[in-house]
Amino acid sequence: MSVTAAQGFTAAGIAAGIKKSGTPDLALVVNNGPRRAAAGVFTSNRVKAAPVLWSEQVLKSGQLSAVVLNSGGANACTGPQGFQDTHATAEKAAAVLGVGAGEVAVCSTGLIGELLPMDKVLAGVGTAAAALSEHGGEKAAIAIKTTDTVHKTSVVTKDGWTVGGMAKGAGMLAPGLATMLVVLTTDADVDSATLQAALRSATRVTFDRVDSDGCMSTNDTVLLLASGAAGITPDTEDFAEAVRAVCADLARQLIGDAEGASKDIKVEVINAATEADAVEVGRVIARNNLLKCAIHGEDPNWGRVLSAIGTTKAAFDPDQLNVAINGVWVCKNGGVGEDRDLVDMRYREVHIVADLAAGSATATIWTNDLTADYVHENSAYSS
Amino acid sequence: MSVTAAQGFTAAGIAAGIKKSGTPDLALVVNNGPRRAAAGVFTSNRVKAAPVLWSEQVLKSGQLSAVVLNSGGANACTGPQGFQDTHATAEKAAAVLGVGAGEVAVCSTGLIGELLPMDKVLAGVGTAAAALSEHGGEKAAIAIKTTDTVHKTSVVTKDGWTVGGMAKGAGMLAPGLATMLVVLTTDADVDSATLQAALRSATRVTFDRVDSDGCMSTNDTVLLLASGAAGITPDTEDFAEAVRAVCADLARQLIGDAEGASKDIKVEVINAATEADAVEVGRVIARNNLLKCAIHGEDPNWGRVLSAIGTTKAAFDPDQLNVAINGVWVCKNGGVGEDRDLVDMRYREVHIVADLAAGSATATIWTNDLTADYVHENSAYSS
Repeated sequence: MSVTAAQGFTAAGIAAGIKKSGTPDLALVVNNGPRRAAAGVFTSNRVKAAPVLWSEQVLKSGQLSAVVLNSGGANACTGPQGFQDTHATAEKAAAVLGVGAGEVAVCSTGLIGELLPMDKVLAGVGTAAAALSEHGGEKAAIAIKTTDTVHKTSVVTKDGWTVGGMAKGAGMLAPGLATMLVVLTTDADVDSATLQAALRSATRVTFDRVDSDGCMSTNDTVLLLASGAAGITPDTEDFAEAVRAVCADLARQLIGDAEGASKDIKVEVINAATEADAVEVGRVIARNNLLKCAIHGEDPNWGRVLSAIGTTKAAFDPDQLNVAINGVWVCKNGGVGEDRDLVDMRYREVHIVADLAAGSATATIWTNDLTADYVHENSAYSS
Repeated sequence: MSVTAAQGFTAAGIAAGIKKSGTPDLALVVNNGPRRAAAGVFTSNRVKAAPVLWSEQVLKSGQLSAVVLNSGGANACTGPQGFQDTHATAEKAAAVLGVGAGEVAVCSTGLIGELLPMDKVLAGVGTAAAALSEHGGEKAAIAIKTTDTVHKTSVVTKDGWTVGGMAKGAGMLAPGLATMLVVLTTDADVDSATLQAALRSATRVTFDRVDSDGCMSTNDTVLLLASGAAGITPDTEDFAEAVRAVCADLARQLIGDAEGASKDIKVEVINAATEADAVEVGRVIARNNLLKCAIHGEDPNWGRVLSAIGTTKAAFDPDQLNVAINGVWVCKNGGVGEDRDLVDMRYREVHIVADLAAGSATATIWTNDLTADYVHENSAYSS
């Protein structure tokens, strides 16, 4: 289903030969209208890949007719030539689709610091255009995988309209407004300002709160395209909620497939003075390597949670901190709480609650454990 | 040599039975004067262990007669009882040494969130006092080890005066004014204000720039004690330089023994607009898990350096960044530079230079690679 669940969209995923493995590596998503509204959220990394710079620029019009995505190369840190290559990719797609290059976004993912094999990319765009289908969503989702072990799609259907999407991302998963490559589509009849507001508020509490390894990509892009083909303009709140639900589902899938992970960790911060405090504390817990190793070892090591909280500027009194792991309050009032042997750590999902006892704000950050497999995946070859 | 290299000091290291392994776990360092000036730098973690709270308090007088140190338990997150235990330890040392408890600092290291076995600690203080010797420095250094594979000592001797010291630390090595447990001694005749200034300026560029795993301890303490036994008051600059040299040597030893590490990585940031920028960029590179995995795999993955730099607020233009790895400028002007195959990564020490092309400030941060052994050491058992 993926990006073709909504009416008005066609997609394709093909093997263009960018990846040496010969697996699919180029996807094309086309909005056939009648509306071609679009919104985007991009990495806040100041070192931005050429396709991010390009797509930010074309998105200013609030209109997109197509998105070209490739795996097998990030086209980041590739200088003026890299930008020209992205431009040429958009021009090629525009030519075969009969639209303007300024309506074509480009997304790339893979190794940083290498130019793309442009002969293969440009030929691939032609091949993908010939393969476009209203059933092409799955193939497109498969073609954007890098170290992902599964492709990720999600669909929400309401009263006559649909929001669907696809995502890739398994490493370098950390926030900065957006994360990873995601394309969402809808057949709701919605203008670009509404799309942008819905997308921004959804990513803020979903992709932006996924923090697998603390490493922020140069290429993160989340796009939302509306075709209007359903002929229905939903209630703004209902629409935003559907976008949020699809983003939350995809974000959870990303964490579930993170490189080398054996545990998915939900870090919930409660009773914070402000939401910003809650996010800061959740993030610093989620990034603590020692804690992530302990969780991998099924060790409910709450001391590492407290030592992480202590590095933040959030409002709290060290003697009033409480920590629960999988429902057991192992730390009460900054000291020893319930018996840590009561904590059942056998399952993949681990739930850490940090109670700051300083207010009523909350935030949830998702992360993973740190494993020897993560080290292996990220040291054995360049990626 | 260690803490007894300087005249006027005795020390001991014994097995008090705090560690189940039966290995040495309690050290005592005594300043026999004639002067008993002292200075200290402590963790900036807001969750501070009981011995840190105690030692900060007694240090306010600028005087110390003795330091009791134990491994086998951090006495952190142990509430009022933990503080009473630290107090009792100082009282016991004061009684057997015939000094005031307010002249006794206490340092603890080990697992957070457990009370110390006080019967063993108090008996151990008596045993250690009976074993005090002007040759006891090595034994003291051995008794403070936790996951350290070797004990760490350093000595600098100048014109008739000496600065020496010992350190422990192999995990949870990250800065916050100070790091790990360190006791330095000198027989120079120096007052506490001079000691504090020399110590603060030394830790700022040594222990504070060691960042093995980004995790800040609740127990970090660096103490400097002066006996005046040499009867010489050195030039302030000479003295500060000697303290800095001992701290730098110990800091380098800590990195060289970090948990599971196979590479020691020197991250040197040059041409930054300010020293703060240089430190921020150095720190974020040193904490990038993906880069640390790549270095472990002997992969000169400069894209991960750039994506890390891009997350900072430091002044730089992405198109002017240069990165050298082991002397090869693999990234020039934000893009591909010299052939990465020229980089020789076979040796334990790896040197990364990040040139921000934005000014003339520099900073060096030391870190380690991220390895499966680190994961194993920190997931296989609570520490």
